[in-house]
Amino acid sequence: MVSIAILGFGIVGSGVAGVLTRNREQIDTAAGEAVRLKYIVDVRDFPDSPFAPVIIRDFSVVERDPDVRVVVETIGGCGVALEFTRRAILAGKHVVTSNKALVAAHGQELLELAKLHNVNYFFEASVGGGIPVLRPLKFDLAGNRITGIRGILNGTTNYILTAMREEKLSLEEALRSAQARGYAEANPTDDLNGMDAARKLAILSDLAWGREVRAEEIGREGIEKVSLKDVECAAMLGGKLKLVCEAKLLPDGGLTAFVAPQVVMPGSMLYGVDEAYNAVLITGDAVGDVMFYGTGAGSEPTASAVLGDVIDAVRHRDRRRAINWSGTPAVLSDPMGLGGRWFVRRRDIAAIEEQCPAVPKGEDAACYRVLEK
Amino acid sequence: MVSIAILGFGIVGSGVAGVLTRNREQIDTAAGEAVRLKYIVDVRDFPDSPFAPVIIRDFSVVERDPDVRVVVETIGGCGVALEFTRRAILAGKHVVTSNKALVAAHGQELLELAKLHNVNYFFEASVGGGIPVLRPLKFDLAGNRITGIRGILNGTTNYILTAMREEKLSLEEALRSAQARGYAEANPTDDLNGMDAARKLAILSDLAWGREVRAEEIGREGIEKVSLKDVECAAMLGGKLKLVCEAKLLPDGGLTAFVAPQVVMPGSMLYGVDEAYNAVLITGDAVGDVMFYGTGAGSEPTASAVLGDVIDAVRHRDRRRAINWSGTPAVLSDPMGLGGRWFVRRRDIAAIEEQCPAVPKGEDAACYRVLEK
Repeated sequence: MVSIAILGFGIVGSGVAGVLTRNREQIDTAAGEAVRLKYIVDVRDFPDSPFAPVIIRDFSVVERDPDVRVVVETIGGCGVALEFTRRAILAGKHVVTSNKALVAAHGQELLELAKLHNVNYFFEASVGGGIPVLRPLKFDLAGNRITGIRGILNGTTNYILTAMREEKLSLEEALRSAQARGYAEANPTDDLNGMDAARKLAILSDLAWGREVRAEEIGREGIEKVSLKDVECAAMLGGKLKLVCEAKLLPDGGLTAFVAPQVVMPGSMLYGVDEAYNAVLITGDAVGDVMFYGTGAGSEPTASAVLGDVIDAVRHRDRRRAINWSGTPAVLSDPMGLGGRWFVRRRDIAAIEEQCPAVPKGEDAACYRVLEK
Repeated sequence: MVSIAILGFGIVGSGVAGVLTRNREQIDTAAGEAVRLKYIVDVRDFPDSPFAPVIIRDFSVVERDPDVRVVVETIGGCGVALEFTRRAILAGKHVVTSNKALVAAHGQELLELAKLHNVNYFFEASVGGGIPVLRPLKFDLAGNRITGIRGILNGTTNYILTAMREEKLSLEEALRSAQARGYAEANPTDDLNGMDAARKLAILSDLAWGREVRAEEIGREGIEKVSLKDVECAAMLGGKLKLVCEAKLLPDGGLTAFVAPQVVMPGSMLYGVDEAYNAVLITGDAVGDVMFYGTGAGSEPTASAVLGDVIDAVRHRDRRRAINWSGTPAVLSDPMGLGGRWFVRRRDIAAIEEQCPAVPKGEDAACYRVLEK
């Protein structure tokens, strides 16, 4: 029997506890032994929760308990989550996380620390919620030279852009609708400005190319300036405006990566990815295009990915699974060099010949890259 | 260093040899040690092949060579492929295959034999070509109770139906076009009648539910009777006729599975899956819908999946990865009980109230299930 502890009893943590309990029998079978939830660490009280008996406040209890072999970190952010992750690894425990901010900012350090202490640090749930993508990229596609990654990695903005198009809402109205449905947080800044998507693209790029891509260095444009007019013009072209993440291996061996709203045409598999769904299209030299699609966030979908990692950690509990994430920093080339078609909207039609990407977004004008495939 | 042998130097075998050689460095890194191609076994001569120096005729050389730890079976069929697979396992070698006919017919026996001899029998490439789907289903989604599988698993028929729709071809013309492009074999019977798709659905169902689903028992209708008229009528409805595979866990715990042409509407993620592409949509109680999409056949895409398995076999060469495939036979319920909308085409409009599935396909009439989501 293996005991696990969950740090943080929020949306994801409670999902993990719930699914682990509900599907106990098959999870035990998949893991090869019984997996039991021994502690949930949270500073808040949950007197009415069925999990109240295992909820504790003091992480050091987990840290000192040799029964706990796997720690699930669903606290989020880079504060106490970082501290507890380091301490859990130092105590010889495997760590599984859904915390993309922590993985993007400290992934390399934590993977090195895990290597040193012969444990695993798994983070499938940090990209694409429940969609299996990191493990397939790292293991199933390991025979390929990866040449490109393209995806819709932020469910909040995808929901907002879908609502604008289908219900003719302004950005502000669509954001309120997303918040009302639990698809956007009270402070949606990192969703709207593309930072959340950039973090996930950085994690994917790190795994695909073994070079450290810093989220802050990824060329980034959010959806803050997208107007209903832009969404409607894109629809007139037969396309859908979506916040697309792209990273490419260039012919010279360099990398480029960016996050920006693009007009996605029906020829692209990303065209059908609406609402809060996510998708990642990976191109390999042998496999061609492979796409992974599903629910990119939420309690139980994210719990599904966390539990896949927990099962893997239990199965490999005496053995590390090597993840090649080198500390070599990637130097990113300017994505404007990629070329391609652009969609330009201007009141002043005479000026349409100007350099497209330079057109400022606003009432009178906007321009977006067009994604044909 | 680990040596491998490839059995059969056809489309898939030559793809494996080529990609393994081209991407040697990263495959060695992913596997954790050098992976070298020591033998290719084929009864034919390939004097001009760069691999000629390693091509041999006698399988017993492989069988007796303790250096060979992983055998790749890309012969196909259930004759010599079955014999060599058994002998390789008996000799203590891991076996990786792309042979869906063998896995569907003898998977359980071979998995048991592998367990007995403490080796792995991997077959990712047997379903969906290069698309990672079996390992994600078995490991990443292992925290879920799987409730449904829906997919387009045969690239040949998908190419034919796409060509009929886009180029207004008859079934016969589209088949010739598929054969000319290498998407259909000289004898396309098992593609057209849905048997190839049923084999893949059986493999997916076995893994999802741990019960032995026999391909022969899956309700099956092929595309032999699909006319251009049907394809055009489906398009008038806004849909696309596709050969869809479905398996479902029923509320009573039973299973149902069938393969049949269906009218796929734009609300379904399968709508965008055209040409020779494949896709598998898996529904889990925690994750919701997850889709895996990519090239379902061909030399290098299939090689990508085979090499993912080879890397896994090398990484786990001293340790079995348990795959739960019980010998308990599944009893399949009648899929007609599922309900849903039907598309009916009749010359004789007065008869339209008849039991839909009973409408015989032909010049005067046809009926197909409609797939909304």
